[in-house]
Amino acid sequence: MCELLGMSANVPTDICFSFKGLRERGGRTGPHRDGWGVAFYQNKGVCTFKDPMPSHESEVARLVSDYPIKSTAVVAHIRQANRGRVGLENTHPFSRELWGRYWTYAHNGQLKDHQSLPTARFTPVGTTDSERAFCFLLSELDKHYPTKPKSRRQAFSFIRKKADILRQMGVFNMLLSDGEYLLAYCTTKLHWITRRAPFGIARLSDIDVDIDFTRETTPNDVVTVIATEPLTCNEQWHKMSPGQWQLFYRGEAIGPNKE
Amino acid sequence: MCELLGMSANVPTDICFSFKGLRERGGRTGPHRDGWGVAFYQNKGVCTFKDPMPSHESEVARLVSDYPIKSTAVVAHIRQANRGRVGLENTHPFSRELWGRYWTYAHNGQLKDHQSLPTARFTPVGTTDSERAFCFLLSELDKHYPTKPKSRRQAFSFIRKKADILRQMGVFNMLLSDGEYLLAYCTTKLHWITRRAPFGIARLSDIDVDIDFTRETTPNDVVTVIATEPLTCNEQWHKMSPGQWQLFYRGEAIGPNKE
Repeated sequence: MCELLGMSANVPTDICFSFKGLRERGGRTGPHRDGWGVAFYQNKGVCTFKDPMPSHESEVARLVSDYPIKSTAVVAHIRQANRGRVGLENTHPFSRELWGRYWTYAHNGQLKDHQSLPTARFTPVGTTDSERAFCFLLSELDKHYPTKPKSRRQAFSFIRKKADILRQMGVFNMLLSDGEYLLAYCTTKLHWITRRAPFGIARLSDIDVDIDFTRETTPNDVVTVIATEPLTCNEQWHKMSPGQWQLFYRGEAIGPNKE
Repeated sequence: MCELLGMSANVPTDICFSFKGLRERGGRTGPHRDGWGVAFYQNKGVCTFKDPMPSHESEVARLVSDYPIKSTAVVAHIRQANRGRVGLENTHPFSRELWGRYWTYAHNGQLKDHQSLPTARFTPVGTTDSERAFCFLLSELDKHYPTKPKSRRQAFSFIRKKADILRQMGVFNMLLSDGEYLLAYCTTKLHWITRRAPFGIARLSDIDVDIDFTRETTPNDVVTVIATEPLTCNEQWHKMSPGQWQLFYRGEAIGPNKE
């Protein structure tokens, strides 16, 4: 299996602290040794660092955990391969352009019969069930909305319905973002936390690192972090239930069930 | 204007030496301060590092120039903005998927009336003339070949013909790769060099750095480097003429004019 990490924020925020925790699970505190990746959005642009090496050993992952890249939406993943060989083409997150926006996605789980999933305009490059599911979702979206819909929130609602089909095929925990919205979809395991004023001190579970968010933030900052397993040991994370989904926009949970 | 750097190799090769030279031109020996990017292919996978900061000052660029990422095809760019604000969405290289392959592109030049270029399936995310020209090329390719052509070389020949249209609109020096082939198209300035046994010592023009390629290579390695301006001061680079193009495959120039 794999682990997911996402961030949605109302101001450009770095993910060094959370990524530091996740990185340990890629070969040290966790078995996810088969690659890692992280996509950072800045406005409509996106930059994705990825590497088929274990994140714990990767020099690039070290840079990402130390060097503050400010972003309002992040999708990250560490991989334990089940379908598809270990290689860059099978390393999450995956991105495609639709309607003049980059869509970025990462998946935790395993799907049966994924070869039967129809894809149209979007073709997988690698051989994972994950990328095929992503191409399926975007192809369905493109078929349903040949031109950009007025409401992107509606588009995410459509994606969520199509994810219900994938859920029937196995384990499908997913993060998907267009740089503004971030959709978290859970079939087995996914947690999230929204941090806002008054901020406090957080402590990572996987490595002896603390952060005092009062020093890193302004009173108006709203930052949500989503992860397969909670990354901190002294905060209360929301645990998502099987079949539950949550849409985030600029740091805030906006549906279906607000905090 | 901007500067381009590309590499095509028959074995996974790092680009640290050449990138070290290019990086200096992004703020120190050259005026290209408005961002930089580099895409590395490994088999069909691609990873693109990009940053709207000057490469000379970028921590990520420092990593890329020091840390050997092995690749058989590379497309890199340093930017001096003319059309489109400085920002990640306008930072080259740009990538899109077509026929289950990632296509990556970078442009040096400026195009008049680029808004008039038709794009179909591929939509620009940013606001540069460069990205629009890329979306035009891929949209034309997709229209002409609704399914993957048997010969990708033929596809590159088609792209070259469409590039002749862009050439009428201004300055259009370009690198475009699908991870196996790399097309270099010149309207004003582009140079290339193929290194093969017997290898020698090369010296960068922009910074006091030498490399002894005999220590870094095996006798069968063939590596071509393409750059706006020669990166070394003690080697003979091929100078391309206006309107000339050259296709590379696994390190070798394969047309129209071989070495």
